[in-house]
This record gives sequence, structure tokens and C-alpha cells, in this order.
Amino acid sequence: MTLDYITGILEKNDKKIVLLIMDGLGGLPMEAGGKTELETASTPNMDRLAAEGTLGQTIPVRPGVTPGSGPAHLSLFGYDPLQYVVGRGALEACGIGIGIQYGDIAVRCNFCTIDEDGNIIDRRAGRIPTDEAIPVVEKLQTITIPGVEVEVRHVKEYRFAIIMRGEGLSPEIDDTDPQMTGIPPLPIQANDPKAEKTAELFRQWAEKAKEILSDEPKANYFTMRGFATNPGLKPFPEVFGVRSACIAVYPMYKGVSTLVGMDVIEFDGEYPKDEFAAAAKVWDDYDFFFIHIKKTDSMGEDGNFDGKVHIIESVDQALPDLLALKPDVLMITGDHSTPARMRSHSWHPVPFLLWAPALCMQDEQTQFGERACAKGGLGTFHATQTLPLGLAHAGKLMKFGA
Amino acid sequence: MTLDYITGILEKNDKKIVLLIMDGLGGLPMEAGGKTELETASTPNMDRLAAEGTLGQTIPVRPGVTPGSGPAHLSLFGYDPLQYVVGRGALEACGIGIGIQYGDIAVRCNFCTIDEDGNIIDRRAGRIPTDEAIPVVEKLQTITIPGVEVEVRHVKEYRFAIIMRGEGLSPEIDDTDPQMTGIPPLPIQANDPKAEKTAELFRQWAEKAKEILSDEPKANYFTMRGFATNPGLKPFPEVFGVRSACIAVYPMYKGVSTLVGMDVIEFDGEYPKDEFAAAAKVWDDYDFFFIHIKKTDSMGEDGNFDGKVHIIESVDQALPDLLALKPDVLMITGDHSTPARMRSHSWHPVPFLLWAPALCMQDEQTQFGERACAKGGLGTFHATQTLPLGLAHAGKLMKFGA
Repeated sequence: MTLDYITGILEKNDKKIVLLIMDGLGGLPMEAGGKTELETASTPNMDRLAAEGTLGQTIPVRPGVTPGSGPAHLSLFGYDPLQYVVGRGALEACGIGIGIQYGDIAVRCNFCTIDEDGNIIDRRAGRIPTDEAIPVVEKLQTITIPGVEVEVRHVKEYRFAIIMRGEGLSPEIDDTDPQMTGIPPLPIQANDPKAEKTAELFRQWAEKAKEILSDEPKANYFTMRGFATNPGLKPFPEVFGVRSACIAVYPMYKGVSTLVGMDVIEFDGEYPKDEFAAAAKVWDDYDFFFIHIKKTDSMGEDGNFDGKVHIIESVDQALPDLLALKPDVLMITGDHSTPARMRSHSWHPVPFLLWAPALCMQDEQTQFGERACAKGGLGTFHATQTLPLGLAHAGKLMKFGA
Repeated sequence: MTLDYITGILEKNDKKIVLLIMDGLGGLPMEAGGKTELETASTPNMDRLAAEGTLGQTIPVRPGVTPGSGPAHLSLFGYDPLQYVVGRGALEACGIGIGIQYGDIAVRCNFCTIDEDGNIIDRRAGRIPTDEAIPVVEKLQTITIPGVEVEVRHVKEYRFAIIMRGEGLSPEIDDTDPQMTGIPPLPIQANDPKAEKTAELFRQWAEKAKEILSDEPKANYFTMRGFATNPGLKPFPEVFGVRSACIAVYPMYKGVSTLVGMDVIEFDGEYPKDEFAAAAKVWDDYDFFFIHIKKTDSMGEDGNFDGKVHIIESVDQALPDLLALKPDVLMITGDHSTPARMRSHSWHPVPFLLWAPALCMQDEQTQFGERACAKGGLGTFHATQTLPLGLAHAGKLMKFGA
């Protein structure tokens, strides 16, 4: 499932496409016979768009598969997550807003406590809080390794990430976390000959780090997990021929957008209206706007049905600001489902709304909700088809073949 | 379309999944404006499950493709039949309940009558009935070939199968049936050098058989068609992480189940209630139950609309026995459509019902039938996605990616 055929039929125009993602939008009723979060929410603006537009539902990865946020967004952006696997290290780096370029190696690290024999006595260094960890990370940032550039970034509490940049690096390196205490961390070892050089560079770095950390009371060593690289994704603006902006509050989504080559727009505030205002500011500079609302997912994860309803309503209330920009195509959907009833991501199909007054086929649905979407005019489709649908409705795709 | 990604996200638990197949379930109205067999049948139990669960429809192979029973079941079990081609010889062997292991060579044979010059005068040996054929097959069972194990099994009337087991065998051997009379059977010839040895072993066997059969009045020789092997399917219980039982009356379905590594449960009786009783007996020993009802298909093939309605109703009446076992996920569907109106298998999408009270999205459909399924919440999906959906609703799949 690749979108290579798209590039050959691209047509430029000045039409604007907005992809508004409410993270974890899909839900479930709390009890049999009830309504979902989206069906419960009062969404007069979205319902009007649903009536004027076309509904459908998406499968983020494959039927039955519950996606993490990384794969779910890659899929929405047209990269089949089964084909383009992005390792945890790269996602964690994305998560703190570090752009991982093709060939960069990222790895997630946990501070740990070792005894004088080098055996791990606490795998999370007493779960030291962020304010204790930052000065330790700053010490590690002073380490240099000849021939490569090394970036060390604090993530959260006892977690940090290392990004190594240079020629001929490979992520085929085993985790060093032994997943138990009483023994030392595992050696840094390549699991493929082509990663030998990289493993040696990380060993050099680790040796210097051990010395620097030796007088720390808790965080006196660290384990490494999920060596990863940017798998060389063809840039999104090139695949789809659109100048592309990411408007998101949370680092993870800025990171994934950076990974695929979108421009991340910086702005103040965290509410839907702030995000729409950010879009307004750069409206003339871009053709495609990815706008990400996080809190629908957070509320779902918390099992807070009413909270999720409220977030959806707040997006609906702010929607006139976005519509005032007169997008030619507006797609409103989620990256996956996060039913409050399950308190977790789920595999259920994701409601999808396409509004493009000039060109879309109005189906018979008049409300934006899961059950209406299951009967919508676009049917059930793989999330990687989102952008082609958006481009088509913006008149940005030519005829395929004669 | 492979399910390799599933194995990496499997999670074990003690939830039970039942896949209840009514063979050839999908139908058509006998005349425009009418109802299908399933829509006509009175199915209060299935309708309740439909109301509480989610409907959809499956495509067994590809849209417009009418599947045979073998490919249709492989697809339900997650093996895309376009990717995993199982030759007729292996299916025929399956059909009489012989398990074909990876590397075994199976071939279908027809008794024929030859004249004294060796020319075929009757390609089916006067269609000799089963009771005449069995003693002849028993004579063939005495033949031994050094270095390999040979099994000869009667199939039906003038048909039998040979299974050869040994090292380094290959099925790349041409049919010997010339498809006409007046000439001798074709020689047993490899169509690939790697099958030379196998062809020679079958030639040795055929020479001994010819001698044994020489005094038979009708079945004095035979032709061979469809040399085949088990294509090395990764075992179902391993792919999906479930202890898997097959409960079926007809040999073909036991055979396909054996081919993919399920345990075949032996039991007395042939009615749905007997099959559900068999499931009850081994309920604690398995996580997944494939239960196969044959007669829906047979009635469809006979053009017996009312008969098919009656079989569906008999399944519905027995269903409380199955529900009493408290399956966590129950999926009811067919392997393909067999509309009585067509008196044959067809390509029409197959109605699908998923009931998993804990985790499924109730759609707006309240009756189990083709038209309701076409509007169901699961949409239209490839039959290979059946097991991932079942596993997900049983909580047996972890999140994919971070």
C-alpha cells in the first residue's frame, strides 16, 4: 500500500486543505444501547458540515489492530505503518520535539542505580523527578565523540534520549536493559555487522558517561533501549505536492510532523481557538494544515467520558474561526479510537468527515458520529487514503491514465 | 496481504473465541424484491446477537471471485488464497481427512479402463461405485517403494488419492490424464529438474500398480492429476497464539483444519446440537473453536431455497447450547455465498456477525441478513481479517507501536 502513484498525477493550485485531528476521537457507548462520546457531544457546526459533506470511517493500521500514536499518524500522513516502521527511539525523540533525519540514530535511555560491582540495584534510579534529572543530563551533554555529533535530551523524570548524527551509522544494536536487577547492564552490541562502528561509538560515549556519573547518588548509570533511525520517509510535501504546516501543542505530534518534513508552526496557547488562530496567521504560506487536538485522547485514556464530550464540544465551538478562513477541503477525524469505556487506545474504526462544498457527494448522513460514519458515503477505508481524498476534493489530482 | 504483524502483538489470556461457519451462507432472493435465505429464516437468537453486536460483510478472495471451499476456508483462517496456493491433490487428500505435512506429495487419481494396447477406452472405469472400488484400492495399498512411505486412500466412486512421504520430494510433475480416449495415459514426467526423483518414485509405483490391476475388468489402470504439496503454511495456532479446535462433520473441513495445524475433535452425530456438544466437551482445552455447518451449502447447491432456510433455522435453534458456554467472542459467517437461485458457489459478499458484549461497537442493525450486513459497523472487509477482529475483541492483541 504505497502512494507512489499520487506523485505522478499531482496538480498545483491555490486551494487549501485542513486535516483536523481529534486524537483518539472514536469511542464506545458506556453501556449497551447508549451513545458514544462523539454522538453525545452537542456539535452543531460539525453536524452541519456532516450534512453538507460526506462521512466514512477509517482503519488506521489493519482491522483489529490498536495503533500507537506514531503509527496512527504515519498512516494518516499516507505512510503505511506496516511498511514504515519507526522505532521507539525515534518516536521518543519525536516526542520531545527533536527532528530525526535519515541516518540519525536515536536511543531511549533510563537512568539507573548500580552498586560498586556494577550491578543494577534500581532500574529507574529511584524514579528521580525531572528537576533532579535535568542537571545530570546537562553533565552528559558535555561529552564529545570525534567524528559524530551527539545530542542528549532530557525526556521526563528518569528518562532521556541520545541522538547520534554522522556517516554510515546503523540502529541494529541490542538493548542494554537486562530487565532485572542484581546484574550489570548488558554490553552495547551490534546485532548486524553493519552496526559495528555505531556500537563502538556508543561504547565510547558510555564509557565517558560512566565516569561523569560516578559520583551521582542515584543516577550513576543508565540503560539503553530501542535504537532507531528515521526510515527514510519520502517527505510529505513532496509526496503530495503541498506546502505543509503542523499546528500541534504536544511535542510528539510536532515530532512526527518533523519526521515527515512538515513545517512546525510555533504559537502561544493550547486551546482549539489558539490553534485555529495559529493557522490563520500562516494561512497564505501553506496549502495543507495538520491541526492536532490532543485532549480528546487524554480524556479517553482517563476514562473520562464527559470530559471527552466536553473537549469535542469545545472544538465545535471554536470551529467557526477555522471556517472563517474558508478552507476548500476540511477533513475532521481521529488518528485512532480511545473509548473512555476502555481507558485506552482501541482498534475500532475511526469516524471521518469530509467537507468540500464544491466537489463532495452529500450522503444521507446529517450528524457526525460513529454509527452515521459507518453508513457514510465514503465507506470504510484505510487511513493512508486520507490525503488522496483531500487532494482530489481540492482539485489537486489529475486524471490517471488516458 | 500477510498477517505477519499479528504474531508480534499477541497477548495470551483465557478468553474464548468461536468462529461458527455456515458453509455457503450468503444467498440471493429468488426474484427481484424478495428476501434471501438468511433474511427469510426465522433466527431470533442470531437477530438478538446482531442487535447486541456488529455486522459487516466479507470478501473471501477478491471482489467478483467465486471461491472453492479450500481457498475460502484458508482465507477465513488468515491465509490469503492468492498467496498460498494449495494444489488440488492436497485438497482432495484433505477432503478425505488425510493430513498433508510440509513436503508430502499428494495426487488425485481416477481409475480408468485401458485396452490391450494400453489405450484408454473409459476415463472413469465405467464410473465404478464405491463398493467396487474399495477392494481394488486395498490391493494398491500393498505396494511398497523403498525409501519413501506411500499411503493410498479411496476417495469416492472411481477416485482415489496417493500420498508420498519422504525427503526431497517435489510436486512439479505433469498430469497423466490425456483428457481423451483412444490413447494411453501420458507418462509421469517432472516439469522441473528438482522433481526428477519424485517422478521416478511415482513411475516405480505405477509399474507395480499396473501389474496388480491387470486382471481387473474395469479399473485396470488409472490417471493422475494435480500433484501437490502442503505449501508450508505457518501453523494457525502459532500465527494467532490460540489453542485451536476444529469441529466439523465433513472430511474436507477437517482436512483443511489439519493442514493449518488445528486439532480435529472427533464426536458422534451430525447436527448443530451435536457439534455444539462436542465444543462443550473440550471447552476448557482450547481458546479458539472453528465450528463448521455443511448443509447450508449443500442445500444452496441443490437449488433448495426452503431447505437452506430450514438449515439456518436449525442452527439458530441450537444456538443457546453454544451461548451457554459463554464464549467471549462469537463470529457467525460463511466461507462464501451459495445462493439457491444459482445452485452454485458465488462471489457475493458474505454476511458477517461479530458478538463480543464486552468490547464491540453496537451498530444500528438488528437482524442478521445480507442487506443489514452491507450497512453494518464493520464495513466490507477481506475474510483474512476475521481472526484479527476476533482476537482484538477478545483482548488478545496488544497495541501496535508506540
